[in-house]
Amino acid sequence: MRAYEIRGGFGLDNLVATERPLPEPGPFQVRVAVKACSLNFRDLRMVQGLYNPRQKLPLIPCSDGAGVIDAVGEGVTRVEVGQRVVGAFAQTWISGAPTKAKLSGTLGGPLDGALAEAMVLHEDGVVPVPAHLSFEEAATLPCAAVTAWHALRAADLSAGETVLVQGTGGVSIFALQLAKLAGLRVIVTSRSDEKLARAKTLGADETINYEATPDWDKAARALTDGLGPHQILEVGGAGTLARSLRCVRVGGTISVIGVLAGAETALSVIPILMNNVRLQGILVGARAHLESLCAAVSQHQLRPVVDRVFPFAQAPEAFAHMEKGAHFGKLVVQV
Amino acid sequence: MRAYEIRGGFGLDNLVATERPLPEPGPFQVRVAVKACSLNFRDLRMVQGLYNPRQKLPLIPCSDGAGVIDAVGEGVTRVEVGQRVVGAFAQTWISGAPTKAKLSGTLGGPLDGALAEAMVLHEDGVVPVPAHLSFEEAATLPCAAVTAWHALRAADLSAGETVLVQGTGGVSIFALQLAKLAGLRVIVTSRSDEKLARAKTLGADETINYEATPDWDKAARALTDGLGPHQILEVGGAGTLARSLRCVRVGGTISVIGVLAGAETALSVIPILMNNVRLQGILVGARAHLESLCAAVSQHQLRPVVDRVFPFAQAPEAFAHMEKGAHFGKLVVQV
Amino acid sequence: MRAYEIRGGFGLDNLVATERPLPEPGPFQVRVAVKACSLNFRDLRMVQGLYNPRQKLPLIPCSDGAGVIDAVGEGVTRVEVGQRVVGAFAQTWISGAPTKAKLSGTLGGPLDGALAEAMVLHEDGVVPVPAHLSFEEAATLPCAAVTAWHALRAADLSAGETVLVQGTGGVSIFALQLAKLAGLRVIVTSRSDEKLARAKTLGADETINYEATPDWDKAARALTDGLGPHQILEVGGAGTLARSLRCVRVGGTISVIGVLAGAETALSVIPILMNNVRLQGILVGARAHLESLCAAVSQHQLRPVVDRVFPFAQAPEAFAHMEKGAHFGKLVVQV
Amino acid sequence: MRAYEIRGGFGLDNLVATERPLPEPGPFQVRVAVKACSLNFRDLRMVQGLYNPRQKLPLIPCSDGAGVIDAVGEGVTRVEVGQRVVGAFAQTWISGAPTKAKLSGTLGGPLDGALAEAMVLHEDGVVPVPAHLSFEEAATLPCAAVTAWHALRAADLSAGETVLVQGTGGVSIFALQLAKLAGLRVIVTSRSDEKLARAKTLGADETINYEATPDWDKAARALTDGLGPHQILEVGGAGTLARSLRCVRVGGTISVIGVLAGAETALSVIPILMNNVRLQGILVGARAHLESLCAAVSQHQLRPVVDRVFPFAQAPEAFAHMEKGAHFGKLVVQV
Repeated sequence: MRAYEIRGGFGLDNLVATERPLPEPGPFQVRVAVKACSLNFRDLRMVQGLYNPRQKLPLIPCSDGAGVIDAVGEGVTRVEVGQRVVGAFAQTWISGAPTKAKLSGTLGGPLDGALAEAMVLHEDGVVPVPAHLSFEEAATLPCAAVTAWHALRAADLSAGETVLVQGTGGVSIFALQLAKLAGLRVIVTSRSDEKLARAKTLGADETINYEATPDWDKAARALTDGLGPHQILEVGGAGTLARSLRCVRVGGTISVIGVLAGAETALSVIPILMNNVRLQGILVGARAHLESLCAAVSQHQLRPVVDRVFPFAQAPEAFAHMEKGAHFGKLVVQV
Repeated sequence: MRAYEIRGGFGLDNLVATERPLPEPGPFQVRVAVKACSLNFRDLRMVQGLYNPRQKLPLIPCSDGAGVIDAVGEGVTRVEVGQRVVGAFAQTWISGAPTKAKLSGTLGGPLDGALAEAMVLHEDGVVPVPAHLSFEEAATLPCAAVTAWHALRAADLSAGETVLVQGTGGVSIFALQLAKLAGLRVIVTSRSDEKLARAKTLGADETINYEATPDWDKAARALTDGLGPHQILEVGGAGTLARSLRCVRVGGTISVIGVLAGAETALSVIPILMNNVRLQGILVGARAHLESLCAAVSQHQLRPVVDRVFPFAQAPEAFAHMEKGAHFGKLVVQV
Repeated sequence: MRAYEIRGGFGLDNLVATERPLPEPGPFQVRVAVKACSLNFRDLRMVQGLYNPRQKLPLIPCSDGAGVIDAVGEGVTRVEVGQRVVGAFAQTWISGAPTKAKLSGTLGGPLDGALAEAMVLHEDGVVPVPAHLSFEEAATLPCAAVTAWHALRAADLSAGETVLVQGTGGVSIFALQLAKLAGLRVIVTSRSDEKLARAKTLGADETINYEATPDWDKAARALTDGLGPHQILEVGGAGTLARSLRCVRVGGTISVIGVLAGAETALSVIPILMNNVRLQGILVGARAHLESLCAAVSQHQLRPVVDRVFPFAQAPEAFAHMEKGAHFGKLVVQV
Repeated sequence: MRAYEIRGGFGLDNLVATERPLPEPGPFQVRVAVKACSLNFRDLRMVQGLYNPRQKLPLIPCSDGAGVIDAVGEGVTRVEVGQRVVGAFAQTWISGAPTKAKLSGTLGGPLDGALAEAMVLHEDGVVPVPAHLSFEEAATLPCAAVTAWHALRAADLSAGETVLVQGTGGVSIFALQLAKLAGLRVIVTSRSDEKLARAKTLGADETINYEATPDWDKAARALTDGLGPHQILEVGGAGTLARSLRCVRVGGTISVIGVLAGAETALSVIPILMNNVRLQGILVGARAHLESLCAAVSQHQLRPVVDRVFPFAQAPEAFAHMEKGAHFGKLVVQV
């Protein structure tokens, strides 16, 4: 089968097309004929060697693949040949609280991922996808959508409460869409008025251009009776966290889901303490999150926002495109 | 009545004994004849002007006072003259989630506190104390014990799980005692072998001298099958947080309850994200926490650890003693 | 002021118009000039003497009143004259878990209620209402809408999950509307196809006529992949509970919010046990529920469904109308 | 291997000793050489045909077995030969909320159980046992102890709060022991003063003889300031539920864990509604419950209470003994 590998060293130049033998499913395993694969910032950093420099190579990158089960091993009962599925990000985190063991078996590193014509997974590691979604759309769910879903579920807001979503990347746009499903009020920040206008069409209640308004924390407070949002989805990491801490409401939650703007910062812990704030790290989620997400996506016939679809031959261009950070929603590679 | 005031400016030199008229309770208010008052690090910082430089003066400091109700205003039904009570730290945070309004009315700043012969409080702002406690012991509950109790309750560990408690100050010793009540395994850190030995007598399962073992995070991981404690009570603030993040278990909780070792630090948010860690700020707690704490203290006949009792005339010495940081448990002033 | 009293004994015949002196607010109290009052099944049973036969008479009935603050007592800071407010059902249940004390001070019995030109309440017992609501609409919130909101919040479903709502009375229609706000899938049952058609226009995803389909539990299971709804709002009480237990999903919740179809039944506890089912009694809710409900109602510009508005002089007719059980949504009395 | 089967029909007379081929573990499976097996009321009812009359026969009964792994199939990594383990009650309920699928694969029916010299289980279906326990003691954990642990964890009481435990059977005695670990106050009911005296030695704070005091609900209220226990572990089922509802505190929890005194009763739902009470069905629990239980049992060196150990040849006598209901704690069969 055709596949991409990070081979010989990290860096986009080392992402190369290759041939591998078609894998056969063992007992309790299934083989997925991959039709589409979505890219996450994590995948980019993995290729760059910035996610886990000790990752063993070669590695087939990308955690998110959608396709059709075309072979099953002995003992498989949970799914069957012909079903349209995605692979779960953390293959053994079925449900419940995360543990070190549950987080250790993730696709696209350390395990081989989805940027290939087929992948073999345990039957417990795949989830049927909503019928109304194309493979390109379905491929966006396992990492970005689950992260947004998990973050929203963990904060447990009620309809009418306010969440602030930073930016318009894959996780952020899902957060916007899924928060609206749940009746939340959503504030979106971006440095692009055009992207903010698109966010409005997806349901954003309020938008803040953080270049025009660097004190976006004060602007967000002004939009919330001076109290601040109940939740902030923090994708900027160190670069924005201090401001998020000044923005969020007493007793509120900052969901730490990304590090786009840097990993390390000079941070004062005083606001965490004084305002009973919670910082909750969100590393994707369990298969149970993916399943309840799919139920919600089906029920609401929600359509993931795909920025651009690249043919398999142009997968490296897709990574280069992500590096520019100009996308709105998800980047997808057809397989 | 006699009272201490921070007057004319901040600093221990401006903590002066004074006379004030005996206050009378208005409708729905009670007057507490204060018998003992405990000191918290917050009270010290308030006197120093480091807690809230905009605090209006004069101010009677100290949030924690125990005494006897000796007068009640019109309409009071919840308590009666003669009852032994403490004042709740946040007078209007009765129960439920914190809000800005609920955190705004705290004793010892911005409201006058307990370092006086009497204080007048709303009837909803006092709680009867366990019968087996002296006033000196009861005075330790409202801030330090409630903080420890709230932090433990919020993390929701089950018996047999592990909590790491930093240091041997007031909150930490309560955390040790209350964690043991709930069947948790407790690791205590300190730079004093003598204090660690005393912690052992209070039930600590494991101790780590962080001067002898600067990599206390690794030591704590070694004590927990390499996984780390389920919860860390972080009292050091910025000075220890990075290490706590390396120590805590995947999916674990760091309860941010103090800033002894500094407020600002260069912090990497990566471990929060990668390990699904929660940082939970804990600013004392609700009256409901104080009430359930009292039930637990009564049921187990728990005795707070009072390091030293100062006579009223030596209140400034008590603050100076706290400044040295050599205490084990709580410092109390008799009134 | 004009008012209705249950006087001399229970029964609709003893609901009589009367005159009372206009009450003056004491310290921390406000007076509400009542403009509209909504009726609940509880109010009817109170008049009938079936809710609490030991209730002292005379009593001004009705827990739900909306109006304008026209006088405030000494010390009031939370609200001000001119604000449009409703009274909270349980005057001292501000937030947090319920207690006996918190449930003891409810309007419309044992405390005088809202069927009068004015009521005097503690300032903590009123909540400002959404600006887009008329008084008639606002008056529907304190009991019926809070009950539905509390039940939904307590079950903590996620968007895309399924709730079954029994009937089309006040609580049920609010449950339908509020569940849709939160992205839930809603199944409504009724014995009237016309009412089910109206429920569809309010967003019901599925409807079941339980006269045409007495095995509505099986029908609901068939609509949910054979698994049953995640939550059932049980308004029938003993008359429907056995069937609800057969219908609800493993691990699901039955919210016990009413007893329309009887109080006592022969019930098998086996299904509770075997399916890890939760039965959760919901007696209205806290002021915090009312406040977050108002935020959601405002955000979504939700309009309560008022079946019919009666003039003050015809209040007894309103009760008689409720007795028939033919209403869809809420019955309101103008004051 | 030797085994017992329910064969040819239900009833104790049809519980017969037999020989079966020694099973071999397939991929991802392990074989446990069973050393001890504990009996639950469920096992008795299974033999009697009262638990599930449609159960296919022959069936090896008993869900709870402890032993040593003596063979592993291909691909097993989670455990290894030589480890002392118990089988989890619900083999595929690893963690998270229960589902129909998770509850469908339970040992001792529908799946073959532990009353045999060996059982073959998926590697995910076994849990290593605390080192200080004998096999007889370890065999008591999977069903009775997990049920008690799950019930206590689900109610989420804090130290100092009160739980009432009905009777002195296996689940009840574990509930007593585990509640004491967590710092709860425990009231035990029984009709035997001798058993109550033994409960006292295990830490019971209060005891009530329900034959001498049929109004045990009032007695329990009197012991709790008139408010009632925060939680009641209901083992009697229909026979005691009405009284439990009158006993439990406003906002409290009744954990429905058994049906000893009958399955069906005339029940009023009014108290559920009026007191915001929760009835929570508890059908054993997840493997995650078993694991955290084992951590607690290890940490506290807790010793399960074994009433009596029967040799393998007398397994039917063990069932007959359980039928009498005279045991205190657990009945065990050595294998």
